[in-house]
Order: sequence, then structure tokens, then C-alpha cells
Amino acid sequence: MPSNGGWLLALSVAALTVNTIGAATSERTERNCSVTPPYLPSTAVNTTIRLQELREHMLPMNISAYIIPGTDAHLSEYIAPRDARVAFMTGFTGSAGSVVVTQTKASLWTDSRYWVQAERQMDCNWDLETDFSIGSVAEWLIAEVPPGGEIGFDPFLFSLSDHRQDKNQVTILPGWSKQSFFQHPTHEHQKDCARCSSKSHTHWCLSGLFNMRGNDIPYNPFFYSYTLLTMDEIWLFVHMNRVTDDLKEYLNASCDGALCVQLKSYDSVLDHVKQYVATPGVKVWIGTEYTNYALYEIITPQDKLMTSTYSPVLMAKAVKDETEQRILRDAHIRDAVAVVQLLMWLEKVVPNGKETELSAAEYVNHARSKQKDNRGPSFETISASGPNAALAHYSPTNDTSRKLTVDEMYLVDSGGQYLDGTTDITRTVHWGNPTALQKEAFTRVLMGNIEISRTIFPTGTRGVNMEMLGRRALWELGLNYGHGTGHGVGNYFGVHEWPVGFQSNNIPFRAGMFTSIEPGFYKENDFGIRIEDVVVIVPVDTKYGHNYLTFDTVSLVPYDRKLIDTSLLSSEQLQWLNRYYETIRRLLVPELDSQGLHEEKKWVLTNTEPFIHSGSSATTTFSSSLTIFLLGITVLHNVIEAF
Amino acid sequence: MPSNGGWLLALSVAALTVNTIGAATSERTERNCSVTPPYLPSTAVNTTIRLQELREHMLPMNISAYIIPGTDAHLSEYIAPRDARVAFMTGFTGSAGSVVVTQTKASLWTDSRYWVQAERQMDCNWDLETDFSIGSVAEWLIAEVPPGGEIGFDPFLFSLSDHRQDKNQVTILPGWSKQSFFQHPTHEHQKDCARCSSKSHTHWCLSGLFNMRGNDIPYNPFFYSYTLLTMDEIWLFVHMNRVTDDLKEYLNASCDGALCVQLKSYDSVLDHVKQYVATPGVKVWIGTEYTNYALYEIITPQDKLMTSTYSPVLMAKAVKDETEQRILRDAHIRDAVAVVQLLMWLEKVVPNGKETELSAAEYVNHARSKQKDNRGPSFETISASGPNAALAHYSPTNDTSRKLTVDEMYLVDSGGQYLDGTTDITRTVHWGNPTALQKEAFTRVLMGNIEISRTIFPTGTRGVNMEMLGRRALWELGLNYGHGTGHGVGNYFGVHEWPVGFQSNNIPFRAGMFTSIEPGFYKENDFGIRIEDVVVIVPVDTKYGHNYLTFDTVSLVPYDRKLIDTSLLSSEQLQWLNRYYETIRRLLVPELDSQGLHEEKKWVLTNTEPFIHSGSSATTTFSSSLTIFLLGITVLHNVIEAF
Repeated sequence: MPSNGGWLLALSVAALTVNTIGAATSERTERNCSVTPPYLPSTAVNTTIRLQELREHMLPMNISAYIIPGTDAHLSEYIAPRDARVAFMTGFTGSAGSVVVTQTKASLWTDSRYWVQAERQMDCNWDLETDFSIGSVAEWLIAEVPPGGEIGFDPFLFSLSDHRQDKNQVTILPGWSKQSFFQHPTHEHQKDCARCSSKSHTHWCLSGLFNMRGNDIPYNPFFYSYTLLTMDEIWLFVHMNRVTDDLKEYLNASCDGALCVQLKSYDSVLDHVKQYVATPGVKVWIGTEYTNYALYEIITPQDKLMTSTYSPVLMAKAVKDETEQRILRDAHIRDAVAVVQLLMWLEKVVPNGKETELSAAEYVNHARSKQKDNRGPSFETISASGPNAALAHYSPTNDTSRKLTVDEMYLVDSGGQYLDGTTDITRTVHWGNPTALQKEAFTRVLMGNIEISRTIFPTGTRGVNMEMLGRRALWELGLNYGHGTGHGVGNYFGVHEWPVGFQSNNIPFRAGMFTSIEPGFYKENDFGIRIEDVVVIVPVDTKYGHNYLTFDTVSLVPYDRKLIDTSLLSSEQLQWLNRYYETIRRLLVPELDSQGLHEEKKWVLTNTEPFIHSGSSATTTFSSSLTIFLLGITVLHNVIEAF
Repeated sequence: MPSNGGWLLALSVAALTVNTIGAATSERTERNCSVTPPYLPSTAVNTTIRLQELREHMLPMNISAYIIPGTDAHLSEYIAPRDARVAFMTGFTGSAGSVVVTQTKASLWTDSRYWVQAERQMDCNWDLETDFSIGSVAEWLIAEVPPGGEIGFDPFLFSLSDHRQDKNQVTILPGWSKQSFFQHPTHEHQKDCARCSSKSHTHWCLSGLFNMRGNDIPYNPFFYSYTLLTMDEIWLFVHMNRVTDDLKEYLNASCDGALCVQLKSYDSVLDHVKQYVATPGVKVWIGTEYTNYALYEIITPQDKLMTSTYSPVLMAKAVKDETEQRILRDAHIRDAVAVVQLLMWLEKVVPNGKETELSAAEYVNHARSKQKDNRGPSFETISASGPNAALAHYSPTNDTSRKLTVDEMYLVDSGGQYLDGTTDITRTVHWGNPTALQKEAFTRVLMGNIEISRTIFPTGTRGVNMEMLGRRALWELGLNYGHGTGHGVGNYFGVHEWPVGFQSNNIPFRAGMFTSIEPGFYKENDFGIRIEDVVVIVPVDTKYGHNYLTFDTVSLVPYDRKLIDTSLLSSEQLQWLNRYYETIRRLLVPELDSQGLHEEKKWVLTNTEPFIHSGSSATTTFSSSLTIFLLGITVLHNVIEAF
């Protein structure tokens, strides 16, 4: 699945389409605040009282503007319902949004894929701001906050790096100061956070130390906690009522030595860190990307603080050890079974005209759930036909779900959480006759995937400096895509696991890292193509050098043969493809056998037939001519013999 | 020519070789400070009195440490002798070095290619520091400067960005403060700065505004000046005694309107800017990379200052207009004549065993000087045979110059200044039988050059995100090179013209920029390969897209055919090569005709014969077989006719 940040480039293109589709499905689904009285659809939420309460809180603290971001105290990409502060305040439930409230104004910033949704869900207390950049928020604040006015925010919801960025923007104003506004908004939609599970493995944010999982957040097996690790103590701050006796035993929680985990209540983390920092001679190391500002600001004076962009725990977690690599590969074999089942089933049933994007998504989710150690999908399945596949991060709803037909391309981007790994794979198929552009674009997206996958590079090369290989074959035609080319993937963890990947803020590649490779191409109102595989970075032998790496693909599902124009592929690309198909046969077929899936086995064998080595089209012509001449000679030879 | 920064990676490998060569040529050329009395070679400079004077200046100002960098007030890459402060203080004349002096210690930092030279030129007042990083200088300062001690520096010799970096390093120390030390060191070796020439065109640092040149700095047609450009006035600060009446007329210096250039003395710039900044409501825009700290610090308060990394003038200068592109291409045609003359001459004379690296350098410098509008070389010619070519930035001296033989590879990296452009080209040749590795490495370096050159990319792509294409063919064998892949080039200006190029701090590519492309490969103690061309970035038509660019090579000298293994090249690479050779014939042959250079014309035609399209070696075999079969059929046909 492409990550959020990367999609921004594509959004302006895709937005209008959503609008059209939305408008077509009902009479007036969006608010109209320019009429008197304002028109509000039934989906709009009345926020008057909530806003009034917030403003009343702001007054005695002399807060001119209050900022609410869309994340949680652990700066999570996905948040739990209890952290849906933006949704509570505004009514808007999209996954990306930030809010600023003053005594007279209230504005929501979100990106273009959510503009229609916001117009449907917000009442006229809210302005929708369509420039989703930090600069835009800053300019808004400059215009609305008087000199000397205070800006409030919850320091738990901002990372140190957010704050730095923000500060740079704000210091251009004379006479402003900032003040932390410590009180959390009072709502909590839901408090039913589940118990920690000690069966499975690692801790989020400050630590990948404990190999534990929870399910506080949909699709992500995280639980809320903080860790303070010192040279001779380990402190884990967690909701104590969720800690079982088993877990206490697992954590050595009854002792206080260097290998014992001392449990403290989640809410005591600030007091405890404050107390620790007061110890003479201590220095605290934090990662600025995922530590919230509330924790950062208590580490004073300055010389007690040591920072790096990512915490050392995140850096260590980015490289998977041998066991992790092995089990993650295993999870991908079982995951491929589910995806093959989907593709095979669709081939059969789509011509009957009864299946939809939604039923396909349900099918693959169900197929995954049947696989050993599956713990649900790793994100909401993107099942998109025709023009819907050209939209960024589209997932079908009852309103938008298209019927699947042999006349449209179909894109399915899905993944699973397994006790032994997290998967993420995208395949694009066509059940009828693809157009020349569809075939050409698909082949060039595939060439991009292969060109990255087969590259040999020195240890420490940065993904951002190689990702153009994923675009180059498209660039030759003047085509491109607007999202990133890949993101790190966890082991039964986040499906987007930074800091690994191909973005400019990702760390250099080392052996043992997992990343997705996912070039694409999107034609507005028409179709979308993405080919995504998860790969592990492995050492490779070269003729003269040491410390060289390459990618080994662990996703194991064949690409749609009908969409591949082999005459465009170089001989190296064709070789790579055939070797990949051999790997699929070697690893997936035994699994299908052991699950007794004979039809699926046959489907995989058919779809992994080696491609004939044709090289360039010029060479193909030569070879064919050669064959003809050879036949000619034989005939002539017979003629001569006959004389 | 590769730029300084980029070479750092390669230095640790190359350093020991210099050492060996140096040690072999005489008995004891380096100082020995560990014996009593210290041993000093005749090349060492006695710095005792100079150091004593500097320390006496530092005492009353309470300066604990004084820093002297190797640049000038315009942060030039090359400096004039009058700015050779490091050489004056230390005796060391290498082109890269920084110095720190305290009351008890004096240290020089330089990179490994200069360590031997420093040991020969410095007396025992000086320590040589071999870790040439900002961090190392900072650590040294932390160790040597007591808390509360002041660090002095000439604010004219540091850019704002140097200062910021430095400040980040220094703020980790408690109780330090910094103080500008405004007095320049008193020496001025030379004051014979030449007069400005109004014949030829533009101004350095704050401006590319005036299209003027000087010759204050070797190899670079710059002159010392500052410019203050306001909405209705232009101020040029220059040494007034160098301004001729012609120049005054050219600059409209007698009026004071928006298009008149008001001349002021070079030394009055600070006072004038101070006065201007005091005007109510003004805001001053500077580029942080090339504005010195002395100018920056007078722009107060903060809200009068606006910064960007590069000044808007540098950004505009980076894109050449149509006229500049045309004349720069022209200069490259004449420049190619000189390089062809060198290569042709060497082919003839090297087997006689009398030529050396030095005589070859002299030959090409002389050949260039005969070309129209030449104004000398654009940098010191790198003429390097065998192991010398594996050294970073080697230029031959009487001590090191090797005889040229048919048994060694030879690398020549040279360029010229012309009134219509600046050139920079590297060719590597072998006059005997190259080894398999030499041929393989040369071909892969060439593949790197071609892969970048032929790439189509969207406007705004960054060089750093494409430069791996220059390395990829080498990486496949586990080979690499330790310098950058290319740098911007001026129009009768600096041969390294930032901010264009393939480094991480270069700006995105736009049509009209010029850059070098120069992958290489270096085998220590054995040989060096570099293939460098200058290219201009041009728009390209694609099947579907707009705003796509590619590179058009303006250097026009064929590569050594003997070193190219065509079986390694893809058909696209071979096609590119043959098209490039057609271009050389089309543009260079008429110039050779017009200069009456018949032998050179013949040499160019021979060396630009098209390569046979072979594709992979497998295809070659097919094609040959095909020809044989065709012949066979003809014969048989005749036989049949005969019956």
C-alpha cells in the first residue's frame, strides 16, 4: 500500500473525480453554507455545543488559537477511535486532518481526497481549508492570531520535529509566544482498549524491546505504552489493569535488576521521567521523529538531552534478524495462497457480472483469515475497478462500490497480519481485452518494479537515490506516478514501518531490511495500475567487490500475463521475471499441495510458465527470419537431392 | 574535473600512494619533529615570527583560539595569492586547508592528498591534523579552549551556513561565546590585481548582473566586488582604481536611476549596507551559501532579513539563455579541436618514449591557446599516467611526472576558458594492449556516462536522485568510484558552478542548465579511468507527457575504441553512442575543415566510425549465422537456376 505522504503529489489530479462520482449518487449530499438558513445534509454533525465548550476552556487560559492534529500520543499513523479528536470536534471522520479553533473561527485542513466527505460531515461552524501544507496553517495563524496572542496545543500530540517545523514558521511573527495546553479534550468515545497479549511480540514507539503486541489500534497490533531504558533498569508505562499475571511473569516484573521490567501506570510517565532527569549526571537519548513534545520538554537543561532523528530502538528494529526474516518469508507464502485464491476466483466469476469491489475485498479478507496464524488484514483492502483505481487510497463503500466487469482493469492492494509477519501486495489484472495504453503502461510499471528489484548496490545506498529506476520506463513515454515507491514493512507490526523505504527521509539500506516496491500509473477517470511486492535486502556476491546488496522478492503471486508486452522487456528483465516465477513455483506449490489446493496449484503453474527469451523486437524479427531461412534451406536441399 | 567535495570519499584509498611516490624521490624530504633538534627540510617555512605576531594580536582581545579558513571574502573555491592566508601562516600551499591557533598550539587540517606536502612545507610550530571534518575541528576546539574562552575568526571568510554549522557544533559547550575578530591578517603577498575587463561578461557572488569579468583569481575570470540591488538602485562596490572610463560608460555610472550602476569603493560595502538596512521598512534578501558572515550580521533586526540557500541571482544564472547556450556550444567545438590534436599527437609520439605527463599537459594547454577567444585553461590540467591517474586531483610536477608508455593507461582532464564559454573534458586512453579489467571497467564507466546522458526525466528531477545510473554498471561487478558524478559549468566563468550538479545540495534540473557527467573507476597503484563530458539540459518530446527533459552532450571528442567492449552495451547504449558520433562528425568536421586540419579530420572520421549493432553477444552470433545462411541461399539459388 502506498504511504500517505507520498500520495500528495497525485491528489490534485484525483480529487475532482471523487467529486463527480459523489454528486452523481444523490441529490444534494453536501452542505451549503452560503444560503440562509444553511443547508445541511443528514450526514452533517452538529458541533455547536462542542465548539462552545472548547472556546470556554480557551478563554481563561488566554489561548487565541488551539490546534488539534489527527494523531495520538505515540504519533501513530493509524489511531484508535478514542483518539479521534478531529472527528469528535468537527464530525469529519477522514484519516487525515488538522484543526485550528479561535474564538470566532474554526477550520479543518484535509487533503483533496477528503474534501467531499468533509462537506458532507461538517456543519457550518467549520471552514474547509484546501491547502494541506504546514505553510497554509501558519499563514492562517498569522492572519487570525493577534500579536501577543497565545497558541495552545496538546504537547502529547506533536512530535519534537513537528514542533521545530512549526516554531520556524511561527517565529516570523513578532510578539508571539507559545504555551502548552496540557488538558486533553474531554471526549473519549470508547475506553474498551483490549488487554495486552503476551502471545505475540514487540512494543511500539520508544521500544521494540519486549516483543509484545496489543490491539489498541485497528489493523496494527500496538498497545499504548512508554519505555524508559537505563543502563541498569527498564521501566514500562502501561495501563496496569490490562497486565495479566502471565505477562508479569514474561516481563520479570517482580524483580528490579537490569533484566527485570518494572511496570508503572501509563499516566505516570511524565512524573517518572522528570524525576529521572533530575538525577545528577544523566543524559536522555530520544528520537525526534516519534517522541512527543510533552516528554521532550521536561528533559532540561539542554545538556541532559541527546537526540537523533530516530530512536536507537527504531534503528535496530529496522534490520530484521535471521529468525525474523525466516518467519516473515513464511507468512508471505501463506499470504500468497489467499491472493491466488482471489485472482483465480475472480477470473471465473467476473464474467457472470455479479461481483463487486466490496465482494472481492470480502473474499480476499476471508481467504486470508483461513490461513494459519492470521490476525486480520494489515490495512483496509483497496479493491478498485476502472476509474476508482485511479483514486488515491480508495477503498470501496456501499455508495461507491463498482461492479466488476471484463471491460475494466481491476486493482487489489491488500495485506494481512500474521503472528509471524505483516504482508502487503498489489496486483492489477484485466479479464477482457486491455487497450494498447493499458498494456504498455502495465509493462512499464512492471519494468520499474523489476529494475529496482534486480539492482545491485553498495551497502548504505539510500532508497531515494534509486527509486527513479521504478519510474524510468514510464518517464520515457512522458508518464509518471504521484506517490512514493516503497515503505518499510514490520514483522506482525505496522504495514508502514519507517524509517525504511524509498523516501527522502528514509535511512540507508542495510541487509535484513524489508521494504515494499510499488511503482504505478493512474489515468484519471479511466484506470489505475500498481504492482507491489515486499522484498528483503540481501547480500550479493559480485566479481570484485564486497558489501554489495540486492533485493529478494518475498511476495509470491504471478503478474497478469495478458498485460505484459515482452517485446518491451530487456533480456535482463525477462531473465529476472523467469527466475521470480521459478521461485514462486518452488515455494508456493508445496504450500498449495500441503493445503490440498489442487486447482490453485494448476492456476499457479499456468501463470508462471516461463516467458520466451525474445530480447528487443528487432532481434525477434531477426530470429523469425532466421527460422524461415532455415526452413527454406531444408526445402532447397530436398529439391537439390531430388535432382 | 571532479569537484573537491566529492573526492573526499576516495582520499583515504589514494593517500598512501602519494606517500610512497614522495618517499622514493629523495632521502628525507619531510620534517621530523620528534628528534632534537627537529629535522626540517629546505622546503619548510619558518613561521615563528608570524605566529608570535598573531598571538600578540590575540592577547588583548582575549581570543583563546583564532580560526583561518582557506577561502576568501567571496567564499571562492579558487583563491588569489593575496588571499593565501593559510599559506602565509603555515608555509603549506595546498589548495585545501584550515588553521586554528591558540597561545600554545597551532594546527593545520588538510585532506590526505596533501599530508606529505604539509610535512615538507611546515616547520615544527605546527601540528598536522588528519581528520579533515568539521567535527574534528570542533573536538579540537572543545579540548583546547577553556570554558568562557572566546574564539576569533574573520567574519568575511565564513559563509552564513558555515557559521550555522559551526554554531551547532559549539553550542554543546557550556559557557562559550563567539566574537568576531574583524582585523584581517596583515599580509598581502600581492596587490597587482588586474583591471576589470568590460569586453567580457558577469560578476561574481552577489551578482551575475553586469556581464563583466576580471582576473583576480587564477583560472577563474572573477573580480572582487559586492552588489546591492534595490528596487530602484544598483550599487557596485569595487576597487575604484581599476574602473576605466569605458567601463563607467558601459555601466551607466554617471546617473543614479534604476538602470544606472552606482560605483562605490570595495571597502565601503559594510558601511553602505548598514546605512541601507537602517532605512525603515526595508528587507534584505541574501543567499546563505555565498554571503559572508560579516555582511549577514549587520542585517538586523531579524525581521529585515530574508534568506534562501542560494541568492536569486545564482539561481537565475544557473539557467543559461538561448544566446549563452549557443555560444557555450560553440566554445566546445573549438575546444574539441585542441583535445583531438592532443590525442592524435600522443598516439604518434608516445611509442617513441620521450613524452611525459608534463609535456602532454603543455601540449594541450598550447593547443587550446591557439583556438579563437581562448583565455587560458579553466583549471590546472590533470595529465596522469598509470598509477598517478588513480590519485585524486593529481596534476604533474617535475617530481612526479611519469613518462608516457604504451604499457600504461593515460587520463587527461582539462578545460579552457573562452570568451564564449568554459569547457571541462576527460578522456582516458591506452596506446598498447589494455588488460581485461581495464577494458571491462572502461566500458562500464562509459555505460554509466551513457545511461545518465540518455535518460528522460521530468523537469525538476534532482541530479542526486539519478546519479546512481552512472555507477550501476560498475556496481554489478562490485566496483565504484569515490567522487561526485558531475558539477555545473559556467559561461566563461567558474568550471565548478554550483548550485547545478548531481550532489545532494544541488538544485533540481531545469532546461538550459549545463553540467558535467563524469563517472570513473580507480585502481590504486595501477590505473585510473574517468570519462567526462559537459551536457546541456534540453526539453524532449515524449509520447504522452510534457515538461520532460534529457541531456544533450556538447563535448565533442570520441572515446578510445580499443577500450570499448561493445558486447556489454545494450542496444539503446550502442544507438546512443552512434548518434553521438554522428553529432561529432556533423559539428566538429566543418570546424576542422575551416581550420585546415586535414589530418585531424581523418583521425576524427576514423574514430567515429559507427559501431555495428550487436546487442548481446548471443544476438551477434545469430546475426553472423544469418549472413552465412543468406550467402548459402544465394549459392543454392544459383545452383537451382543452373539446373
